[in-house]
Amino acid sequence: MVRPSIVLFGDSITEEAFGEGGWGSSLANHYSRSADVVLRGYSGYNTRWAARVAGRAVATVAGAVAAVTVCFGANDAALPDRASAPQHVPVAEYRDNLRAICAMLHRRWPGVVVILVTPPPVDEDGRRRYPYAHDYSGLPERTNAAAGVYARACVEVARQCGVRAIDIWSRMQKFPGWEKAFLRDGLHLTPCGNRVLFEEVVFALKDANLSLEALPADLPLFGDMDPKDPAKSFDDDERVD
Amino acid sequence: MVRPSIVLFGDSITEEAFGEGGWGSSLANHYSRSADVVLRGYSGYNTRWAARVAGRAVATVAGAVAAVTVCFGANDAALPDRASAPQHVPVAEYRDNLRAICAMLHRRWPGVVVILVTPPPVDEDGRRRYPYAHDYSGLPERTNAAAGVYARACVEVARQCGVRAIDIWSRMQKFPGWEKAFLRDGLHLTPCGNRVLFEEVVFALKDANLSLEALPADLPLFGDMDPKDPAKSFDDDERVD
Repeated sequence: MVRPSIVLFGDSITEEAFGEGGWGSSLANHYSRSADVVLRGYSGYNTRWAARVAGRAVATVAGAVAAVTVCFGANDAALPDRASAPQHVPVAEYRDNLRAICAMLHRRWPGVVVILVTPPPVDEDGRRRYPYAHDYSGLPERTNAAAGVYARACVEVARQCGVRAIDIWSRMQKFPGWEKAFLRDGLHLTPCGNRVLFEEVVFALKDANLSLEALPADLPLFGDMDPKDPAKSFDDDERVD
Repeated sequence: MVRPSIVLFGDSITEEAFGEGGWGSSLANHYSRSADVVLRGYSGYNTRWAARVAGRAVATVAGAVAAVTVCFGANDAALPDRASAPQHVPVAEYRDNLRAICAMLHRRWPGVVVILVTPPPVDEDGRRRYPYAHDYSGLPERTNAAAGVYARACVEVARQCGVRAIDIWSRMQKFPGWEKAFLRDGLHLTPCGNRVLFEEVVFALKDANLSLEALPADLPLFGDMDPKDPAKSFDDDERVD
């Protein structure tokens, strides 16, 4: 039987999920014997482009998909009159696009657990220090207030569509010093920020009955074998030749 | 079209591949837009048990498998008269088991690139400092000389079977201070040791025409889009509704 998989669909917060201390790596490590974590992250993408390519993106995923995290909005929320204007998407369209993506995922994989993840908060000072190349304006191209508008919209769409939401925008801001502790350039996650997101995803999956305890481990665990007769654990298996 | 995948089949060196700084995470990050990295690591397993369950293990993998790394031997090489005796497998049987696993992989996925990875070197001082629970003997249950016998056997089987080999046992020992730099407990890899293995796997995959450059990126890269008309990159796609 094919192992269940958890697909991570999103922008750079997702594409970087297997970087240093990444939340995707932590998930893959957490579920090392029970579920596959499949990366479908597209840096720079907003929901307008994601909604267009979502069908193509999921068509590249094989197997038994149990859950999908959907994390967009950081790019949609880029201000329309600053350096990242080409990525901006109005919030009404952002909602429509998220709804369309949810509907497509449910059509493709009936019964799949969808988890919408809001964009993270923005540290404007960090964005000023780490601007995109060729942006000499000195003005941040994203603000925390704008990201918050999209985060609230994301949570609302999740409620309307009957899917789970992780409000990482609110959650992270509960920690004093979140700006530098969780964001390495005002936008992308540090290892600590990745840890927060990882834990929220684990909680959401547990809530959806996809906890480590609920999923069967693939093949006998070494710690469960009888040291005096370890081969006994494999009595149902044939040696390959 | 389903993305090609790279399956990591092995013992704890593989099961831990998505831990901190792990070689599996680095691979998944490296191939973030072009290949899926699928974990099939079984801590504590030797090739006797792996050969018995290999069919079941690969049956849980969906999709288009392009390459498989096979990394066993660290447990087979455990000394037959010390604390990890139940894991020991004689080297002649180790060879047979590796051959059987290679043959099974080729039957299951004709044309698949198989890469045999030797066990890493053993730092006996590290094993004395971090013995398994209930081992009060003060004697390491593995030696570097024994691991070397299995490493040479692994390289030889690879040559006989016409598959690639990564001799991580020899490679790591070329670096002065390998004992503590690459092994955290005399056996398992530090982030630096993971880095060495990651780089060797990338070289081997490149040699097998599975380099980052050879594999198509999934969907247009943001950096390739026209900032004045980014949607143009998606002209062939339909928005989902």
